[in-house]
Order: sequence, then structure tokens, then C-alpha cells
Amino acid sequence: MKTAVIGSGSWGTALAQTLQDNGQDVIVYGVDDREIRDINENHKNSKYFGDIQLNPGLRATTDINAVRDADVVVLAVPSIAIEPIVREVDAILEKPAVFVNVAKGFHPVTNERLSDVIRHSVRPEHLSSVVSLIGPSHAEEVVIRQLTTIDAVSQNEEDAKLVQNLFSNGYLRIYTGTDEVGSELGAAIKNVMAIASGILSGLGYQDNTRAALITRGLQEMIRYGTHFGGKEQTFMGLTGVGDLIVTCTSPHSRNFQAGYQIGRENDVKNFLENNTKTVEGVRTAKIVHRVAQEEGIDMPICEEIYQILYEGKEPSLCASDLMVRQLKKEFPDA
Amino acid sequence: MKTAVIGSGSWGTALAQTLQDNGQDVIVYGVDDREIRDINENHKNSKYFGDIQLNPGLRATTDINAVRDADVVVLAVPSIAIEPIVREVDAILEKPAVFVNVAKGFHPVTNERLSDVIRHSVRPEHLSSVVSLIGPSHAEEVVIRQLTTIDAVSQNEEDAKLVQNLFSNGYLRIYTGTDEVGSELGAAIKNVMAIASGILSGLGYQDNTRAALITRGLQEMIRYGTHFGGKEQTFMGLTGVGDLIVTCTSPHSRNFQAGYQIGRENDVKNFLENNTKTVEGVRTAKIVHRVAQEEGIDMPICEEIYQILYEGKEPSLCASDLMVRQLKKEFPDA
Repeated sequence: MKTAVIGSGSWGTALAQTLQDNGQDVIVYGVDDREIRDINENHKNSKYFGDIQLNPGLRATTDINAVRDADVVVLAVPSIAIEPIVREVDAILEKPAVFVNVAKGFHPVTNERLSDVIRHSVRPEHLSSVVSLIGPSHAEEVVIRQLTTIDAVSQNEEDAKLVQNLFSNGYLRIYTGTDEVGSELGAAIKNVMAIASGILSGLGYQDNTRAALITRGLQEMIRYGTHFGGKEQTFMGLTGVGDLIVTCTSPHSRNFQAGYQIGRENDVKNFLENNTKTVEGVRTAKIVHRVAQEEGIDMPICEEIYQILYEGKEPSLCASDLMVRQLKKEFPDA
Repeated sequence: MKTAVIGSGSWGTALAQTLQDNGQDVIVYGVDDREIRDINENHKNSKYFGDIQLNPGLRATTDINAVRDADVVVLAVPSIAIEPIVREVDAILEKPAVFVNVAKGFHPVTNERLSDVIRHSVRPEHLSSVVSLIGPSHAEEVVIRQLTTIDAVSQNEEDAKLVQNLFSNGYLRIYTGTDEVGSELGAAIKNVMAIASGILSGLGYQDNTRAALITRGLQEMIRYGTHFGGKEQTFMGLTGVGDLIVTCTSPHSRNFQAGYQIGRENDVKNFLENNTKTVEGVRTAKIVHRVAQEEGIDMPICEEIYQILYEGKEPSLCASDLMVRQLKKEFPDA
């Protein structure tokens, strides 16, 4: 069984190394020649991991034809790149493959969840199934083989198990799940909460405030996710509260870092003008704003983040508007 | 309306200052003459808060008679002291009072929740009702007026509102709730999870591992709490996931600190021999172990922490036993 990992960024590299550690047949495909040579010649991916030594057996290529005979295609690219890369892969695949999505977000135009994007972008004869491999997992820790636990979620339980068996080892533990909607929506929206958490920290708020934010953020995620048929229980798991915690409290999170800068400067301009990294929560905030308005879902934290990012509202004003919101009972419907 | 805060420790001092900030009639009662004089003369509580200046109007006393005519009695003492201090207060009270519990734990012998301990220790003619004031709140942040959000939980909704109105202000926001069982069990058990989180950190595990622990810890808390009639929803709130996050991720938490030392030394002996602070999770682990065995509740994280604290099991062994536990589906019953 051959796996092609599309994307030579931090998560693609860390996941490919996991497969290499497991003795699997794996290759990384990427478009950045320096990154690919760095992996092949230096056994490093210095841009993301500095001097950390990768498994020396790991191979990478800039030739998309390496994907042609893959049984499993791991899509380790930003959410906006999912559709074009899937179409590119579909055009050259020789047989059906399991598509593994590891991105967290939505299609930038159609608002679709990424598993749906994949299903709609690959011809049925090339698609075995879609599996989302998501959960609380900084690539920087997986690459140094820190104990990490994530979910393989799919409508197809057999393929979820296949992905579980492929990636599981002593440091990466995979659980299976079937609630694709709940898992993907939780994993996507938590990036907006991480921006919010970063903004609060940048503004000088401390742990008590952050705990309040995360608690209410979880409730927003549940409200949004169950609206679209996700199970409430899923949000108590790794792709819900687990991913939310790690992203809202860890300096490794790009979404948190982005928020921190915005909060510290109490202004979004600098960040928007100079940011070059993929910060998924920025796009997700726009989509959640749009969909929540259309569907009538109350998403006060996401809305304030949208106001900061897209409407120029001052971060400190958003924070105080958020935290003084009039609510008397914690669970008004209880 | 007069409030007596029993206990001149960090949380008692911070809550009493909040009432003083709100212009309420409040007095702190404590047994440590140095702490009481520090509050009255220096407007500090140096033992807990270093050089931080308290509201200069705050008054404290070592005379228990100051509690005699209180309408509200706030019990800011460790869980083991709740019963004796309530009996002492009951002996001198002149009228019924609202008893506010802010401790998180159980009676050391009967295993009762603290609201039940209070109800069973004060004569009915002196008890208006019991309100638990709990949630994610480090005293060190409340005393410097950092934005904090907690719950006033009671079987008596009117008295919950009374406590809400008494304490609420621009930096301390109080929500009301009625699920006493779920709130108290969540707040108590999360201290065991915080010890576990500290142990993992002390052993060198990082954010991904901690997120996995917290996620599974929440599931244990829910299992235990719903067994005794708590509502699952409550564990998604401030006294559940909120308190869990702040305690498992913040250096202010004594339970986390205790775990961190145990993990770093990979041994519990030093901690047990030299600790002088109240670390509620240590006692809670013993009670949860006992009750979970009697009731047949599966509590793997609490059990490993019990094994470390009371049976001499090596922390690093517990951590690996915990994390390699064989589970295939994240939610086996889903």
C-alpha cells in the first residue's frame, strides 16, 4: 500500500515521517524545491522545524506523477488549496484512492466542509472514500515524536480503520469516529476561538478570562455544529474540546499567534498587511459570519472576531463587548 | 446585609475584597493573627499576594463573634475544615444565613459533597440555603481585578441570585445555575485531572498530550457526575470544562504545581513529605477511588493518580499505562 502526502509543510512532513517510522511506502509531494531538497538531502525541513533531524528514509518530490499509483492520498494543504489539488490528483490517478483530509476549514466560495469539497472534486471512479484525520496535534510535537492522540473520522468505518492502522504507533494514537459533520465543524471553528484567545492574551487578559472564553467558545461550536447535524458528544472529544484547548492555549498555534499580535497592537492592520502564513481562522471567521447570518445561529465570539478582521472594530472594544454580554443563567434553557 | 468571609487565605481575601469594592458590609474572619494584621494594617495579604495592595477599606478579625449577625457566610476554607467551621458558626449565629461554599472537594470521611456537608452540619433554623460559588478563578487574578466569570449554583434560585447580585461587578461576572451535583462534582474532580496534567508536564510531555489528557479527563468527570444525577450539559460549562482548563493549564494552580513536582522527580515521596499547602486533588483522588470502586464507575485517570499518590506506583509508568490504553473508537457507544 502506497501513500502520497500532498504538501511539504509542517503537518505534511510530520505525518509522512510517521508513516516512514511505521515502515510504510510513503512519498511527500510538494511544489517548493528548497523544501523538497531539504528533506531528501539534509533530512530536515528547516523552514518549519529548524535543525530537527527527520527520519533519513523519508523521500520527497516535486513530480506530481508520484501520486499516480497511490492507494492513500493525504491532503496536507491549506483549505483554499484543497479543491485545485484534488482536481490535479484526480486527473492523473490510476485507481481509486482513500483521500485523507487533514486541513481544518471550509471551501472559500461554496462554504462546504472539506470532506464535501473532496467528494465533489474527484471522480467517483478515483474515490474510495474520504477520511478526516484531525484532533489536537501541533506538527512541531509530532515531528519530535511526542505522544499525540487524534481521530480518523469517516462515513466509511472500514477506511477510517485503514487510516488508523496506517498511522498508529507508539507516539501517535488514532481513534476512529463517524461524526464527520461534528468533527469537521469543531476542528474548523476552534481556529476562530484561538484567534479570540490570542487577542485576549495580547490585550493583557489572563487565565480566568481565557477559561471563560474557551467555555463559551465551546458552546458556540456546539450550537453551530448541532445545527448542521453534528452530535453534541463529538464536541466533548478530541476534535472538539481537545483541539480547542490545544489551539487556544499553546504558543505553537498560528491562529493564537495571529490573535496575540492583533491584541497586543490593538489593531488588525499590521497583521493583515504583513502576514504570510496560513491562518485558517481568518477565513473561517468570514464563512461562519456569513453562514450564521443566513441560518440564524447565535455566534457572538465569532461575530466579534469577524468585526475585528473585516470591519475594523477595535479589538479592546470587542473584548469588553463580549465579556459584558448580559446573560444571567449559564444555561438559559436548562 | 452583612457578609462574613471565613478564611483569610487567598480566595477568602480576594472574594472579600470584591465585596468591599462593591460597597458591601463585609468582614474577613481568620485564625492567623499575622494575616489578619497584614490586611488591617498594611492592606496586604503578603503570604499569598506579595506586595499587592488590597482595598484599604477591607477589615479582618480573629474574633469569631463577628460572624454572629451575618446574613451571608462565605466558607473560604479547605474542604476538610468545612464541617468543623460550619458547626462553630452555627453555635453562635443569631439568625438564618445563606451559606456560600467556595471550596472544591468532599468530606474526608463521609465522601459527601460540600453543599451536603453544610446542610448536615448547620441547624435548620440557622440555614437559609447553600450556594456554591465556583468556576475558573485563580484568586491571584481576581485580587488584581482581572475579568473572571464564575457560577452561583444552588437548589434555591432566589439565593443564587442574591449571591450573584452581591458579588457581580465589572471584573467578576456571576452566572446562576441549579445543577448543584454536576457543578460540585466537576469542580472537585478537575483537581485530580490538574495533578495528572502537572505530572505529564513534569515528565516532559507537551501540549498535544495534555490536550488528550484534558479531553479524556472531561469524559471521566461526566461519567462520574452523571452517575450521581448531574446533568451532562453542566460539564460543558464554567464549573466543568472551564474550571478544568484553567486548572490543568495554569501555573497558578496548586494542584498542577503539585503534579509538576511529582512528575519532574518521577516520585511522590518528596512532595508528600514536604508539602504544606492545601492541594485538594490529593484528597479528592482518594475519595474518587473509593467511590468509583463501590459504584463501579470507570475512572482510569483518577485511578492512576491514586496509584501514584497512595500506592507508590512510578509516575512515568502510570503515564504510559494511561496513554496506551486500548481504545479503538473515541466514543465506543456512539
